[in-house]
Amino acid sequence: MVHNGIEYGDMQLIAETYDLFNRAMGLPSQEIHEIFTEWNRGELESFLIKITGEILVKIDEDSGRSLVDVILDEAKQKGTGKWTSQNALDLGAPIPTINAAVEARILSDYKEERVTASKILPGPKPHFKGDRKSTIQNLQDALYASKICSYAQGFVLLKLASMEYRYEMDLSEIARIWRGGCIIQARFLEGIRAAFNRSRDLPNLLLDPKLGEAVGQRHGALRQIVKLAIEHGIPTPGFSSALAYYDGYRSARLPTNLTQAQRDYFGAHTYRRIDKDGTFHTEWKDMNKGPES
Amino acid sequence: MVHNGIEYGDMQLIAETYDLFNRAMGLPSQEIHEIFTEWNRGELESFLIKITGEILVKIDEDSGRSLVDVILDEAKQKGTGKWTSQNALDLGAPIPTINAAVEARILSDYKEERVTASKILPGPKPHFKGDRKSTIQNLQDALYASKICSYAQGFVLLKLASMEYRYEMDLSEIARIWRGGCIIQARFLEGIRAAFNRSRDLPNLLLDPKLGEAVGQRHGALRQIVKLAIEHGIPTPGFSSALAYYDGYRSARLPTNLTQAQRDYFGAHTYRRIDKDGTFHTEWKDMNKGPES
Repeated sequence: MVHNGIEYGDMQLIAETYDLFNRAMGLPSQEIHEIFTEWNRGELESFLIKITGEILVKIDEDSGRSLVDVILDEAKQKGTGKWTSQNALDLGAPIPTINAAVEARILSDYKEERVTASKILPGPKPHFKGDRKSTIQNLQDALYASKICSYAQGFVLLKLASMEYRYEMDLSEIARIWRGGCIIQARFLEGIRAAFNRSRDLPNLLLDPKLGEAVGQRHGALRQIVKLAIEHGIPTPGFSSALAYYDGYRSARLPTNLTQAQRDYFGAHTYRRIDKDGTFHTEWKDMNKGPES
Repeated sequence: MVHNGIEYGDMQLIAETYDLFNRAMGLPSQEIHEIFTEWNRGELESFLIKITGEILVKIDEDSGRSLVDVILDEAKQKGTGKWTSQNALDLGAPIPTINAAVEARILSDYKEERVTASKILPGPKPHFKGDRKSTIQNLQDALYASKICSYAQGFVLLKLASMEYRYEMDLSEIARIWRGGCIIQARFLEGIRAAFNRSRDLPNLLLDPKLGEAVGQRHGALRQIVKLAIEHGIPTPGFSSALAYYDGYRSARLPTNLTQAQRDYFGAHTYRRIDKDGTFHTEWKDMNKGPES
């Protein structure tokens, strides 16, 4: 199940990459095919990148157009992505990129409403005038970095599931098996196997020196790509969630102190402090101001 | 339950706003208090904005610091947000902003790992040098626009739940009741009530002329704010997901045509076409190239 959740994440990140090439940059499918074919010779080498390249070069015999261009954009799902998201919530594993992928398929199903909304709701028109070569390079780096963030999420879920259900999974071995052959088969899984070999109890792939460094070298490209998408009005929930995950995970202090204060204000849920042990409650309201304040 | 899911969304958007004021712009709590107090006199008027203002002005007697500054940033939850996310997946309602809020609380609980990661993973340091007044205005507009997107998601879930479970809910009446008094009590709910009075079967709040226009006038501010967060390394999963929802919903064509092609390639799941009825399957692989291609 988690394999399939990760697969949803991969497919969504690839779809967003394709969307940026297609809608933002205006590249025809044939050119996007060439980029994916090239990428499959490098660090992104994987079954899904390979078949994306093959799909994009396929011509529809009826229309003479690229076949992908005449396929309806309503994606279906069989439930494994959904179950991954639901299970992660039960186990307390944050998997925002996988969730974003599941949700993107759900949203795609609202085709009629989207067509209506497209005529009403304003937004920037694609107008790419940037440097093509560096943008393609940024997209490659953003895809690789986001993929690591997404797998980091998926492997935390596996780890928690293994503890909760007493599966006693060997995560290095799982990476090796997936590397052998499956839909998410990828050269990249070797790095994950190596990471768990270096540290069997690694809490998160981002804390592995090599994988962390790989994202650390590419977060700038990911930032550029999400900004590009925002400026062109292209939705990139997968890339955005991977970046928010990265920035959230590396935040020693998040703004959830305010959340805790709010919960204590309206529900007396108490809070903890940074400077001493215990739980605390505050009467937040200034009583002198009366009930209307 | 959905009320609480929406409440999670509101609280997360407020927390991100506070984080941008605090970490990106470096404003002290007293100044942020003044902004929230001011906002509570306008279109954002609500219980949660009001108490945020009150919280930010509270001084800790022990340390003499703002009390919020000494509260630990591990947010707890009682389950209602999680159930909202899980139920929405079952019913096929995309609620990415609410999910992002639930996930943000989960991530906040990984405090020790975050502290470790903060020392290892690089990112931009806060370095705000922009125009303060216009940034505060953009944040106000971004918060309002994101709030509408989040409520649009929540009300779709209510609508689907009402159909699935035969609740026969009157969504206009629900907005009225919430307006009367509860944690998400807000002036803004009047606009939602009016929207459902205009069209009882409104599929999505974004398709209401007034609410759609309200977001349409503010999406530029929301784009500015998410870009600001990205440039300062501040995670804004709530704002980002609201923007991706807006851009996804107004996309007549999403890149899920590629997703469908991939699913047909590796699983023969078939696809539909834009130009004729029926389901189709393609032998994507060029058989002349043999099994290794």
